[in-house]
Amino acid sequence: MLSKNEIKRITSLTQKKYRIQENLFLAEGVKLVSELLQSSFEVYHVYATNDFETTLPDSKLTRITEAELNKISQLVTPNEVVGLFRIPAQQLPEYKGLIVVLDTIQDPGNLGTIIRLCDWFGITQLVCSPETVDCYNPKVVQATMGSLTRVDIFYTDLNSFMENSNLPVYLTLLEGDNVYETDLSKEAILVMGNEANGISKSLIQKRYKALHIPRFGRMQQTESLNVAMATSIFLSEFKRRIF
Amino acid sequence: MLSKNEIKRITSLTQKKYRIQENLFLAEGVKLVSELLQSSFEVYHVYATNDFETTLPDSKLTRITEAELNKISQLVTPNEVVGLFRIPAQQLPEYKGLIVVLDTIQDPGNLGTIIRLCDWFGITQLVCSPETVDCYNPKVVQATMGSLTRVDIFYTDLNSFMENSNLPVYLTLLEGDNVYETDLSKEAILVMGNEANGISKSLIQKRYKALHIPRFGRMQQTESLNVAMATSIFLSEFKRRIF
Repeated sequence: MLSKNEIKRITSLTQKKYRIQENLFLAEGVKLVSELLQSSFEVYHVYATNDFETTLPDSKLTRITEAELNKISQLVTPNEVVGLFRIPAQQLPEYKGLIVVLDTIQDPGNLGTIIRLCDWFGITQLVCSPETVDCYNPKVVQATMGSLTRVDIFYTDLNSFMENSNLPVYLTLLEGDNVYETDLSKEAILVMGNEANGISKSLIQKRYKALHIPRFGRMQQTESLNVAMATSIFLSEFKRRIF
Repeated sequence: MLSKNEIKRITSLTQKKYRIQENLFLAEGVKLVSELLQSSFEVYHVYATNDFETTLPDSKLTRITEAELNKISQLVTPNEVVGLFRIPAQQLPEYKGLIVVLDTIQDPGNLGTIIRLCDWFGITQLVCSPETVDCYNPKVVQATMGSLTRVDIFYTDLNSFMENSNLPVYLTLLEGDNVYETDLSKEAILVMGNEANGISKSLIQKRYKALHIPRFGRMQQTESLNVAMATSIFLSEFKRRIF
């Protein structure tokens, strides 16, 4: 049986300060937890109903009831298992390939979707400003659908990251070169901005290239594409040309 | 002051059966309601705090308190105004231009995002299977951010809609022609499938063209793109070539 303290400790991981303190994050559901168990992530402990099949040693597994699962789950429909995993030590990003940079993405769903897009497009490095939502936030973790295991995510000061780069830097703005008509480098840094405010002024430098997606519709239009939608279109443009 | 019955009537519009019964839908927030008021949608009544500036006649406007707004709002952060608008009579779609067809999209956020994408890409006709989530569901309405005023949405039997068409039909599947390498018609029907099950078997006919987005990543990958992400990539491919 789960003690009150255990329940409290598990659910406290929905908060960033406790994730940092414990160096652990939460993941839920059969598919996601199974994928994490098969990945390089280190499992700390798994809480699962008897329905969940696993070869985990007893020391790493606590069998719980449906009622207990409901108490620790963050999902509307809890699904057999909640796992606690170690937050991996952050490495330094390497200046190679196509790197996506996020300047203060705040919505967990957007970050989760962008991680999934990186995975789809074979992008293995995602660099985030310190103000970007934590990728170990449970809502982000769930939205990645396992892509978290295949994309390395770094939080760092973007100014110095971009300044130290030899790769061309593309800023995605509302004005700039038409992405469909511009030559794009295979190796590059692609910067996506905040949902409401776009890319920070301090990052907008003349030596960087500005790109935009043209509107096709009537004049009075959607003000801008959602950042995850825009990311999917930019990544599609970068990647389709390498065929 | 709002009576209990009025509150009940307004909030009942979160349910489809009452929307059909009353022929009304809910929209919230300064920006969205203002955009709807300037559109061809017919306003039925607006409930707003004194902060909301409007030239609406008294017969269409009830001033309410913050506390009353909180009672009728469906938002986490209510924003000055809740409007009731008439659901427009459904016309017949015309077989022209690029038409997006949705086969049983169930998530309101996905439908809202796809409506917004249609707007961005200048697509004015969206045809949905009867099983697709109602576009007047408040979650969809809010997610469209006003694009609902610029895209005509039809609910109809997809088999007969597609059978009666002279336009080429493209099915988006996990296998098929590589969308990046295929000639695409400017006027066409593009079919997107359900989040979990894809396009219904009954719609998959040999005379239609199958398209897919290739994966760029490693082998063990995200199983599929989210349908809204996939839609953004397909629409980008159809539209960029018409420049």
